[in-house]
Amino acid sequence: MPEFRQDIITGNWVIVAKERAKRPEDFSEPEKPRKERFRENCPFCVGNEKQTPPEVYAIREEGAEPDTPGWKVRAVPNKFPALTSNGQVNTGDVGIYRTMSGIGAHEVILETPDHDRSPAYLTEEEIADVIATYRHRHRVLLEDERIQYVSIFRNHGRIAGASLEHPHSQIIATPIVPPLVQHSISSAKDYHDRTGRCVYCHVLEEERKAGVRVVYSNPGFIVFEPFASRTPFETWIMPLRHSPSFGDISDQEIEQLADALGLTLRKIAQGLNDPAYNYMIRTAPTVSEYDGAEYLHWHISILPKLAIAAGFEMGTGIYINTATPEDTAKFLRSI
Amino acid sequence: MPEFRQDIITGNWVIVAKERAKRPEDFSEPEKPRKERFRENCPFCVGNEKQTPPEVYAIREEGAEPDTPGWKVRAVPNKFPALTSNGQVNTGDVGIYRTMSGIGAHEVILETPDHDRSPAYLTEEEIADVIATYRHRHRVLLEDERIQYVSIFRNHGRIAGASLEHPHSQIIATPIVPPLVQHSISSAKDYHDRTGRCVYCHVLEEERKAGVRVVYSNPGFIVFEPFASRTPFETWIMPLRHSPSFGDISDQEIEQLADALGLTLRKIAQGLNDPAYNYMIRTAPTVSEYDGAEYLHWHISILPKLAIAAGFEMGTGIYINTATPEDTAKFLRSI
Repeated sequence: MPEFRQDIITGNWVIVAKERAKRPEDFSEPEKPRKERFRENCPFCVGNEKQTPPEVYAIREEGAEPDTPGWKVRAVPNKFPALTSNGQVNTGDVGIYRTMSGIGAHEVILETPDHDRSPAYLTEEEIADVIATYRHRHRVLLEDERIQYVSIFRNHGRIAGASLEHPHSQIIATPIVPPLVQHSISSAKDYHDRTGRCVYCHVLEEERKAGVRVVYSNPGFIVFEPFASRTPFETWIMPLRHSPSFGDISDQEIEQLADALGLTLRKIAQGLNDPAYNYMIRTAPTVSEYDGAEYLHWHISILPKLAIAAGFEMGTGIYINTATPEDTAKFLRSI
Repeated sequence: MPEFRQDIITGNWVIVAKERAKRPEDFSEPEKPRKERFRENCPFCVGNEKQTPPEVYAIREEGAEPDTPGWKVRAVPNKFPALTSNGQVNTGDVGIYRTMSGIGAHEVILETPDHDRSPAYLTEEEIADVIATYRHRHRVLLEDERIQYVSIFRNHGRIAGASLEHPHSQIIATPIVPPLVQHSISSAKDYHDRTGRCVYCHVLEEERKAGVRVVYSNPGFIVFEPFASRTPFETWIMPLRHSPSFGDISDQEIEQLADALGLTLRKIAQGLNDPAYNYMIRTAPTVSEYDGAEYLHWHISILPKLAIAAGFEMGTGIYINTATPEDTAKFLRSI
């Protein structure tokens, strides 16, 4: 029989329906083309640095000039930004509706000079450089008084929304705290009010005790499949230390996260034949300025694109998951 | 400059990114292969009635037997259901987490005997039969005391989540009121408490006055692109009469809705070359049993699959829309 499972953090329910995994499909998956290490017309490839707006940050070999080869990780403004960085945040009205100027920042983090190496195939050191770049940009952008939230995310593969192949993450900084972040914070605050503890720390403790949904852990992080996973192989990476803001990650934690994130992405790529995925960092707004932000516990969620959120999910917010997190965790542990 | 727009109902914001914007006609899909009218191995085609579970309702020619040819619309249980209909709703605990038995109903509405005719190419009468079937099943399922909500939706095209091609809608009845429905109701109740009026009726009035986002209207329904559309060509069809529950649609409204829905799907199919889409009916739980349900105003939202909700949308709940609803409404009016 299918089962409803409640997300202890958001209160949302998912349906775990293994029986549906057997239903027939009229359609088959297309083959993926091979990629090359360098692509002449890729604006993110080495030698094409002038095709992006001037970099705002980079980790590069000593002596190498900005916007030239010799970089390991580059942060550049998005050439087609969803938000622009010049101007003030003004609100307005159109009839009965409200608007606000589209101020913020939209940056691209080029994770490697190589066109063909996704994060699953970067070394731990290279991933640590990417995470350190995230931290730097997170801190700098949050210092801008117009900015209330910094969203860091990665789209891997076309069906996960990547429009350019070259390995990159994105950062969008907004003048509002996004609704899903508000919801996480108010849920965590409610839980704390009721029980006196952090719901994320409670989940950590439960997962370590139960073990069945854990994929991996090291002294700083735990990798697990949430009890109410929305899609097959939804995977969370959470720091053991309670910390609301990703920006406060320590140097040691960066190394530990590089180990956990690299291993997890490698397991997913090898076990599932390089599926498309999204990952995003859920973190707090500036703690001193947002009520309840201290109750958040930052983490990364990875959502492989193995199912389609269709009419039911879009209309209700309830996800139907055709695999149990206990089964997918067991599979990932075995890779 | 891009613009934030606030959804007056949910309070969520979207980004209309004019710099990233495309013209409406740029969303047109590539040509697709023609389908045949009958497919031997399709369980939903005429003559294959025994391949589905026995029908629970049908509109058929006089004298035709159940589960044989001669039907116009058939409602059958899903062979691979997300929820099952036998049993009681029990809650349980797994460690600190909550579960509930996966009780409910999952039905498929076969909209036409023809494999190759999507709703855009049904007659008004045929669409009216589909809507009447929705109404019948909505009423019957809500009478089950275990059921709190009946979700009616349609996935058209593989990337919108349809696993079988034959034109069909789905109904999933749940023992809980879904989170997005709860949110719509509490938002509408808040709005009513603040202003003394229905937010949906207020939107109707505003849209008719402004005109720029209206695609079509008839004496019963208005078709428009919401001010804070989440994706290009998001289209709502809303009854002019305030009514919380779709189940209360009148016979005359069924005819008017068939006209509005058929015309809208035809405009989308012709103007954008038959894109994939999802549509869903947002309706109220049993009004006497759910606080505030009377403030909902049922409606259909159609979301063509022309953009991918990626890491940013999934992590924040803020959508980036690359076309303005004023432009897409103008385009659809012209078709």
